[in-house]
Amino acid sequence: MSDVTVAIEPEHDPHLVAAVEGAGGRVVPLDRARVLVWIGVGPAGFPELPDSIEWVALKTAGIEAFLAAGVIDDKRRWTNASGFYAEGVAEHALALLLAGLRQINTSVLRHWDKDAIDTGVRTLRGATVAIVGAGGIGASLIPRLTAGGASTIAVNRSGRPVDGAALTLPTDRLDEVWGQTDHVVLAAPSTPETRHLINERSLAALPGHAWIVNVARGPLVDQKALYRALRDGVIAGAALDVTDPEPPLPDDPLWSLPNVIITPHIANPASGLTREMAPFLAENVRRFAAGGELIAPVTPDRNY
Amino acid sequence: MSDVTVAIEPEHDPHLVAAVEGAGGRVVPLDRARVLVWIGVGPAGFPELPDSIEWVALKTAGIEAFLAAGVIDDKRRWTNASGFYAEGVAEHALALLLAGLRQINTSVLRHWDKDAIDTGVRTLRGATVAIVGAGGIGASLIPRLTAGGASTIAVNRSGRPVDGAALTLPTDRLDEVWGQTDHVVLAAPSTPETRHLINERSLAALPGHAWIVNVARGPLVDQKALYRALRDGVIAGAALDVTDPEPPLPDDPLWSLPNVIITPHIANPASGLTREMAPFLAENVRRFAAGGELIAPVTPDRNY
Repeated sequence: MSDVTVAIEPEHDPHLVAAVEGAGGRVVPLDRARVLVWIGVGPAGFPELPDSIEWVALKTAGIEAFLAAGVIDDKRRWTNASGFYAEGVAEHALALLLAGLRQINTSVLRHWDKDAIDTGVRTLRGATVAIVGAGGIGASLIPRLTAGGASTIAVNRSGRPVDGAALTLPTDRLDEVWGQTDHVVLAAPSTPETRHLINERSLAALPGHAWIVNVARGPLVDQKALYRALRDGVIAGAALDVTDPEPPLPDDPLWSLPNVIITPHIANPASGLTREMAPFLAENVRRFAAGGELIAPVTPDRNY
Repeated sequence: MSDVTVAIEPEHDPHLVAAVEGAGGRVVPLDRARVLVWIGVGPAGFPELPDSIEWVALKTAGIEAFLAAGVIDDKRRWTNASGFYAEGVAEHALALLLAGLRQINTSVLRHWDKDAIDTGVRTLRGATVAIVGAGGIGASLIPRLTAGGASTIAVNRSGRPVDGAALTLPTDRLDEVWGQTDHVVLAAPSTPETRHLINERSLAALPGHAWIVNVARGPLVDQKALYRALRDGVIAGAALDVTDPEPPLPDDPLWSLPNVIITPHIANPASGLTREMAPFLAENVRRFAAGGELIAPVTPDRNY
């Protein structure tokens, strides 16, 4: 195995040091490294790269800020964390959907108001859940939903069938989804095409018992239209880990609705990132040493 | 098929009428029936039974109140709903556990307090969950937990291995469970033996990151000891669908703890009981017509 020297900046992290060393690499200062693992969440403080750096591994899945800052060059390989956090985000999406269906938000707010709460309880069993943007998160979510007795509609760019989904539709047939699903999980990247895909029209086409879960990005949802739909009972509820703007303003009327759950962008908690990243980094160090393809190469033209 | 005449009292219910008729039975008044389906939740108003009644189907799993009222006799067959609601209760147990691990309660109460919430997020992946009283609810819960990346320890009377559990232990080895699990789900019946099985000693033996979920009965938990353990950080949290007393008094200090989720005994919501019961009643009507064994015969000596 060739000598893989790895700098971990801006600070060492025990999970990643262990991953590098476990994969046969050596952690060294930047000026002696062939690899930089950048664990800052953005480009602030990103170093001038020595020519010796052949590969830069970023800790985040989204790379918009790095592209905007112009740090990503074509002199070396770049990887992001696309897919690394899929299992955790899928778990959070399931937690949000179940919390909505089982009235946990209302129970937390309205102590033992059984008459009001009991009739609002719904079940995942027998329900259809559409996953819009069925990539890594969708692949992780589908078996969890299936084990809970639900069936799934996967929506992706190509429409190529997704394992475990009862139906896969391409993005350009999204309009057909709303009328044949019970609930929606948003897991698509934020792009001009996905902006406001939940809007007044799609909300009106969903059934009245629908819950919408957003673990993707706030701009996928027209939040004003969502507020009106929730206020007027057009759909049953929304569970949002991301919002637009983010966070919502303190006086945003969304906060006051009983059928809204908002978690503060913790589907992939900052406090757990390096632990989640570690096994993927170890695998990439092994692949780099062997001269192979890396997991999660950056594709700047697709913005993620 | 013999003529199965069924009275549904104290009122007709569309789900159960459809179930009886779909199974080839006929819904008739009590004095012309061979079967009584009693959909009152307790014995209040329970009728004097004509000798023609050969089988009484109760809608509840717990039959303590019917036994206490002396309505259960040995002149005919009796069934309860033991196991009918297991899938729904398992779903609620998973919802409670995930809501705790993913900090949904704190998020609902403390708007976008990201610094406080992020570090509290835990994951089900890689965790061990002990299911105490691994009967029907446990059997339904295990595949849901497994799909979420957890492994399970089942605890039952006999210790006979439960499908899908990594380990099964008999109830008399319960003391060994606390030190080798991350979380606990209580799904055992309320009996003198299960009273206060969560107590100061078992709480102290659990890891500090443990969540306890109770979807069984309040008396399984020494609630004062639980309060102290939650207040002092002995364990991470508790998610309770049942309490002791039930409901908790309005000034119970449990209500004020941030690491407690209380739902008002809705794991098996009253508003959904007959819909859940319908397929089981249909199957039992078919079995009765064919002279076969019924699902969920009452075993009064075991109190459920």
